[in-house]
Amino acid sequence: MKFELQYKDTKTNARAGLITTDHGVIETPIFMPVGTQGSVKAVHMTELKEDIKAQIILGNTYHLYLRPGIEILKQAGGLHKFNSWNGPILTDSGGFQVFSLAENRKLHEEGAEFRSHIDGSKHLFTPEKVMDIERTIGADIIMAFDECCPGDADYNYAKESLGLTERWLDRCFNRFNSTDPMYGYNQSLFPIVQGCVYPDLRIRAAENVASKGADGNAIGGLAVGEPTEKMYEMIEVVNDILPKDKPRYLMGVGTPVNLLEAIERGVDMFDCIMPTRNGRNGQLFTKYGTMNMRNQKWENDFSPLDTEGTSYVDSLYSKAYVRHLFKTNELLGLQIASIHNLAFYLWLVGEARKHIIAGDFSIWKSGMVTQLSNRL
Amino acid sequence: MKFELQYKDTKTNARAGLITTDHGVIETPIFMPVGTQGSVKAVHMTELKEDIKAQIILGNTYHLYLRPGIEILKQAGGLHKFNSWNGPILTDSGGFQVFSLAENRKLHEEGAEFRSHIDGSKHLFTPEKVMDIERTIGADIIMAFDECCPGDADYNYAKESLGLTERWLDRCFNRFNSTDPMYGYNQSLFPIVQGCVYPDLRIRAAENVASKGADGNAIGGLAVGEPTEKMYEMIEVVNDILPKDKPRYLMGVGTPVNLLEAIERGVDMFDCIMPTRNGRNGQLFTKYGTMNMRNQKWENDFSPLDTEGTSYVDSLYSKAYVRHLFKTNELLGLQIASIHNLAFYLWLVGEARKHIIAGDFSIWKSGMVTQLSNRL
Ligand SMILES: [Zn+2]
Ligand SMILES: [Zn+2]
Repeated sequence: MKFELQYKDTKTNARAGLITTDHGVIETPIFMPVGTQGSVKAVHMTELKEDIKAQIILGNTYHLYLRPGIEILKQAGGLHKFNSWNGPILTDSGGFQVFSLAENRKLHEEGAEFRSHIDGSKHLFTPEKVMDIERTIGADIIMAFDECCPGDADYNYAKESLGLTERWLDRCFNRFNSTDPMYGYNQSLFPIVQGCVYPDLRIRAAENVASKGADGNAIGGLAVGEPTEKMYEMIEVVNDILPKDKPRYLMGVGTPVNLLEAIERGVDMFDCIMPTRNGRNGQLFTKYGTMNMRNQKWENDFSPLDTEGTSYVDSLYSKAYVRHLFKTNELLGLQIASIHNLAFYLWLVGEARKHIIAGDFSIWKSGMVTQLSNRL
Repeated sequence: MKFELQYKDTKTNARAGLITTDHGVIETPIFMPVGTQGSVKAVHMTELKEDIKAQIILGNTYHLYLRPGIEILKQAGGLHKFNSWNGPILTDSGGFQVFSLAENRKLHEEGAEFRSHIDGSKHLFTPEKVMDIERTIGADIIMAFDECCPGDADYNYAKESLGLTERWLDRCFNRFNSTDPMYGYNQSLFPIVQGCVYPDLRIRAAENVASKGADGNAIGGLAVGEPTEKMYEMIEVVNDILPKDKPRYLMGVGTPVNLLEAIERGVDMFDCIMPTRNGRNGQLFTKYGTMNMRNQKWENDFSPLDTEGTSYVDSLYSKAYVRHLFKTNELLGLQIASIHNLAFYLWLVGEARKHIIAGDFSIWKSGMVTQLSNRL
């Protein structure tokens, strides 16, 4: 893949760029909908493309490795062929799920042993094995296998963990560089900056990551319970060091406001389950704040779901109808909320990009941050 | 509404016609997707129209009366406005749900007392009240309130029940004829032939129903546990009597084969939750038989879901992917199966219509009945 830095904001570190992969072009800053098990929950592939205007989606290595399994994905010719999404895909390394979802986890220098949360079966993820799995899944961008340090880890734990992550990173690159993509298109490996909330560890990690000369770089281990201000501070520390001519991906973040704050600090790529998961709980994000669709106040509000929304669900369905769908547990409610929220996230990053290009990102962003914090 | 009988098959009683309502034209024979609570489960309104090619959908009076409630539907300007489906709608009378879903049911000459299955609240449905509710919901076609006789009722019970249904029918027509539609378009009231599996009761019921000169007539109380052959026999007995120049609606039926057998016997309209409910359980109907998508045999079958399917999901997604979605409980699986099955039902009745018009319905139907019975 190729990254072209197109515009730099003069007042902040915000940037607009273009990532070119063999499955298409991505305009940054970008938000990537999460397709955990190869499907973005409650959303058709056609809706992702046409209504949400997603440019790249995520797959989760841990989940896809367990089901449908690597053998099936290989026979299918990779995840793109399997799930019919023919745009760019990024896979995480499974590290986060191994450390949060799997059972009986045991950490060794060699790798992480765990039992499947589905059937209790025993597995071992090593950096080499994860590279092989991600080669087989065949995403355009694949992530290094690292230890996801707990949000409340003390300094010594975080330091030891970072050491392991750095040794694993070398092993990831060794395996990646000695293997070929399997389906005739290129893959890029992104290393991940860890280091918990400790600035000196983050600096060390960022310098190590930067030294790899990768096609893009990621910041992991944030939004895991630390204060939001701490997260912003870590992003600043890290982005001072990460190369400016490569995309920066902040993993697993976050709220609409988090996205704008991170864009201001030079982040280009995001993913988060918040728009879909919160949507399924009835929380809708709009440019004027959030709406809880279970709230009685929408009961007889027959106005469109979101008069300024960008997807067809916003004008087709009314607030009162969507409230009714949530109150009666109708699946259509989950579908509408998921499409709306994802379309909103994509609108938000697209709008940020426009304002970076127009040169008024800073002013626009302050106004938006205030609006977005409202509860409607 | 208006019914035009366009073609009559020469070898069977199959017919092709045109129903014209104020919300659009319906080509018969037709299948009507069921939108129980004002939403066809897991299906967008746009998909109903564009992918499934539904021409009319159902709403359930019992469910809509409880949630969102009649006051909200009135404020919305009727169900069409509320759920954004602007084609024709038919509402049942709630009778079936009162007798199958509600609690503490008490039957009087006046009406049926029951408690809500949701919150236990107490309600009374009388023929007059149901007419008022259906006026407020505002469907194009509304159904009379009757007692749904249990499938295993003995002759005496069935006879008494029919008496009550007939007295209630008169009260329905009285109320219907003394009230006006509320939203500026017309509504038609369909009476329902009951009588359980007893030919003489069915004959009496059909004669009584025929005498009302309604815009259309329905056959109820079938597919409730009786042998399939009994059902076909009852349809024959009843359709001998029901006026030929009015549409005939067989309520709550059924499998694809049931539809073809009933079309052959002169039925024009159908509804059933089978395509959506069975779809959500992983059963897909195709012209070559049914597929259970949870079956391991699809695990690495990367061919399109249904190469001869009419909706986009059939060519976009593979069997292996849809199996994966069902095995991992992904909502997208429910959505794909619902769209596929409804599109298939609409294709099937459309195809029946074509063959009635072409004059070879009988031959086509025999071939189809054999194919449809396969398990793939
Ligand atoms: Zn997140
Ligand atoms: Zn049915």
